[in-house]
Amino acid sequence: MSTVPVRPSRAIDRGYRERALKVIPNGMYGHLSTRRFADDYPQFLARGEGARVWDVDGREFIDLMCTFGPILLGHAHPEVDAVAAATSARGDVLNGPGPEMVELAELLVDRVAHADWAMFAKNGTDATALAVVTARAHSGHRKVLMARRSYHGIVAWALPEQSPGITAEDHANTELFEYNDLASVEAAVARAGADDVAAIVCTPHRHDVFVDQEPVDPAFARGVRAICDRIGAALVLDDVRGGLRLDVRGSWEALGVRPDLSAWSKSLANGYPLAALLGAEPWRDAAGRITATGSFWLAGAPMAAALTTIRILEETDGIALMRASGQRLQEGLRAQAAAHGLAVSVSGPPQMPLLLFADDPEFAKSLAWSGACARHGVYLHPVHNWFLSTAHDAATIDEALARTDAAFADVRDAFGAD
Amino acid sequence: MSTVPVRPSRAIDRGYRERALKVIPNGMYGHLSTRRFADDYPQFLARGEGARVWDVDGREFIDLMCTFGPILLGHAHPEVDAVAAATSARGDVLNGPGPEMVELAELLVDRVAHADWAMFAKNGTDATALAVVTARAHSGHRKVLMARRSYHGIVAWALPEQSPGITAEDHANTELFEYNDLASVEAAVARAGADDVAAIVCTPHRHDVFVDQEPVDPAFARGVRAICDRIGAALVLDDVRGGLRLDVRGSWEALGVRPDLSAWSKSLANGYPLAALLGAEPWRDAAGRITATGSFWLAGAPMAAALTTIRILEETDGIALMRASGQRLQEGLRAQAAAHGLAVSVSGPPQMPLLLFADDPEFAKSLAWSGACARHGVYLHPVHNWFLSTAHDAATIDEALARTDAAFADVRDAFGAD
Repeated sequence: MSTVPVRPSRAIDRGYRERALKVIPNGMYGHLSTRRFADDYPQFLARGEGARVWDVDGREFIDLMCTFGPILLGHAHPEVDAVAAATSARGDVLNGPGPEMVELAELLVDRVAHADWAMFAKNGTDATALAVVTARAHSGHRKVLMARRSYHGIVAWALPEQSPGITAEDHANTELFEYNDLASVEAAVARAGADDVAAIVCTPHRHDVFVDQEPVDPAFARGVRAICDRIGAALVLDDVRGGLRLDVRGSWEALGVRPDLSAWSKSLANGYPLAALLGAEPWRDAAGRITATGSFWLAGAPMAAALTTIRILEETDGIALMRASGQRLQEGLRAQAAAHGLAVSVSGPPQMPLLLFADDPEFAKSLAWSGACARHGVYLHPVHNWFLSTAHDAATIDEALARTDAAFADVRDAFGAD
Repeated sequence: MSTVPVRPSRAIDRGYRERALKVIPNGMYGHLSTRRFADDYPQFLARGEGARVWDVDGREFIDLMCTFGPILLGHAHPEVDAVAAATSARGDVLNGPGPEMVELAELLVDRVAHADWAMFAKNGTDATALAVVTARAHSGHRKVLMARRSYHGIVAWALPEQSPGITAEDHANTELFEYNDLASVEAAVARAGADDVAAIVCTPHRHDVFVDQEPVDPAFARGVRAICDRIGAALVLDDVRGGLRLDVRGSWEALGVRPDLSAWSKSLANGYPLAALLGAEPWRDAAGRITATGSFWLAGAPMAAALTTIRILEETDGIALMRASGQRLQEGLRAQAAAHGLAVSVSGPPQMPLLLFADDPEFAKSLAWSGACARHGVYLHPVHNWFLSTAHDAATIDEALARTDAAFADVRDAFGAD
C-alpha cells in the first residue's frame, strides 16, 4: 500500500527484549511495557523529535502517546532541553533549592485559580498521596472517596484491592463511588461517616482505561464541591493527566468549580520529572506539618524546564493548537472508520483522544487496529487515552490519518465491516 | 580569625525566603528546609562544583552533605552531565525505555551479589514501597517489620504514627523492633504472627537522625537472615542511603549476608533522579505481577548517568578514596574537639560521618557548631549523617578542617570546655 513506509528489520529491538527478559521482571513493567500489545510495537525506542519517535531499529512513528503525557511541546524540545542542561551544569540537586523553585511556585499560584501555595515532588503518585495526607492532617478525618476504576497512581489505597501485594488494610479507609453519579458519592459518604471523610478525589473527566472517556457532568462537579463543603472534606482534583494540557488554570476552572487541593505532574516540564501539589490557603498549615520529602524533589533542572514549558505553551497558544489538531484527528478518524464501515467511538477532549471499537468486548479489534497503526507508523494505545503535543500540527495529523486509514483497511479485511 | 573568609551580604537569600514564604508552606519543606538550623545557613543555593556549593549571595561552602547523598562524584560532574544532556537531546522520556535500561539492569545484576533482576523508579520511597508490595505478593503475608526510628521513606507504613495525616490503619501491618537486637525481632515476629510476616526491612547500619551511627552487628544481620528463611519472609535491605557509596555489591555483602530484595536510590546517578529495586530470583515472579509504574521511571538520562557514574566510581577506586578522605576528616574532627576541650562522638562509616556533642540533650551545641561551620564555610548537618564524594580529596578535607577548627573555637567560647 502506497502510504505504508518500508519498515526495517526488528532485530535490534528483539535483541534488547531477549536481554531484558533476563534482568527485568517480564522483560519490562508498567505502562511502558508492550507485552500485552500486538507484536508490531517496539519495546525499545532510540529517539524522539517533535511529534515523532524512532525505535532502536530505526522505524519511525508519528507519536500519539507523547510518553503517556509528559511530552507537551514535542520530544527533545531544544529550548527546554537547553535550560535543563544549563541548570544541571550549574549543579542540579544541591543542599537547597535554587531560585527557580520560588519562581515556579509563584507562576503556578498565579495561573492556577484555586492555588495559594505549591509543593513539588517527582511522581504523579507523590502528588496524589501528599494530597490525601494533607487532607487528613487538616481535618483529622481518615476516609478517602474515589471513583471506582479511576487511576490515582500506585499508592496502595488507590490501587484495586485485587492488585498483587495490596492488603485489605490498605483499603480500610477507601470508599468507592461511581464517576458522575452524585447519589453514589452521598452513599459513600454515608458508609464512611460524614464526620470522617478527609478527601474526595476526582479526575477532571473520566479517563479510565478500557472505556470511552466521559466529560464530567458540571452538576456532578458542583455537587461534589458542595458535599466537601458540607462535611469538611478536601476536594482533591487529580489533574496529573489533564493538567496544563487541558487548561493552565486547572481542568475544572472553566466549570467554575475550584478544588481545595490539586495534583499535577506529567506535562509540567515537557518530560523532566516533576510533580506538584497545589493547595488553597486553608490547607497550607496542614501541608506544612506533614512529612513530605524526597531526594530529588527540589532539583532545579525540572523546575527550570517547567518555567520554560509553561512560557512557551502560553506564548504559542499551545492549548488552542492542540485542541485544533485533536479535533482534526478525531473527525478524521470518525470519517475513516465510517468510510470503512467500522463502528467506533472516538472520545475524550481533543488533546487526549481515544478510539475504541463497537462490539469489541475482548478488544480484539483495538489490539489489531493499534498494531496495524504501529506497523504503518503511528504509535498510539489500544485502550488508554492518547496525548497530543503542540508539535502535532495539521500536516502531521494528516500524515497520521493517512497511516491510520491503512490500519482501518487492515481491520476491515481481518474482521469485516460492521 | 584568619581562617574565616570574608562573607558577603545575605540579602538575596533573604529575598527569596520572603517570596517563598508566600507560595510554599513554611517557605520550604522536607529535608532541604533550613528553618530548624542556625540562621547562618542559606536556604537557596546557586551552584555546585566538585566538593563545593555556593549560595545565591555568592557565599562558598565546602559541602559535606552532597545533597544528602545523591552527589557521589562531586557536583556538576562534566562527564555525567554530558551523557545525561546527550540522552535528553535524543529524547529522554519516550513511549518505551532506551537500551541503557537493559545495560543498567545488567550492570547492577552483575555487580550486586544478591540481585537477579532490577526495576527502576524515581524516589527511594518508591523502591522501599515496591519492595514491600513485592514481598507481600510473593508470600501472601501482610506484616512488615522495621526498626524503631529507622527511616524508610515517606510511605505511610514506615512513617511514625504521630506524623500528621498518618492513620492508625496505615500502621495496621507494621511491627517495630530495635536495631541490632535480635530478641526484639523475634518478639515482633511473634506479635505479627510468624506465618504472616511479608518482610523484615533493615538499613545496612543504624543511621537514624539525632543519634550516633552504629554499625550493624554481623550476628544481628545473620540472625535476621535466618529468621526470614525460617518464616518465609523477604529480607529487604534499605540501601537507599548507603548503596554504592559504601559498597557497589550492596552494603551487607562484606558481611556475607544477602538480602532477597534491596532498595537503592540517592547516589546511583550522581544527582539524576533514579531509584532501583533489586531482587533475587525467587521474587522475580511477584515483582512482575505487582502494579509498578510511574510517568518518568524509565527515562533514559538518569540511567545513562548511572552507567557513567558507576563506571567512573570503579575506574577511580572512588570508594577507597572516599573512605580515606572520611577517615582523615573523622580523625581531624576528633583531634580538634579534644584540643578545644570539647567532648564529641564522631560516628558512622568514613563516607557517611556524623559528629554529635556529649551532654547535648537539646542539641544546642550541635546547632551552634553547625551554624558556626556554615558561617566559616562548611556545609554540614547538625543531627543527620553527612556524605562525602570522590571530589573530597585530602586537600579539601584539610581546608574543611581549618574551617571546622574555627567553629569549635566558637562553641568553646560560647559554651566553655567540657
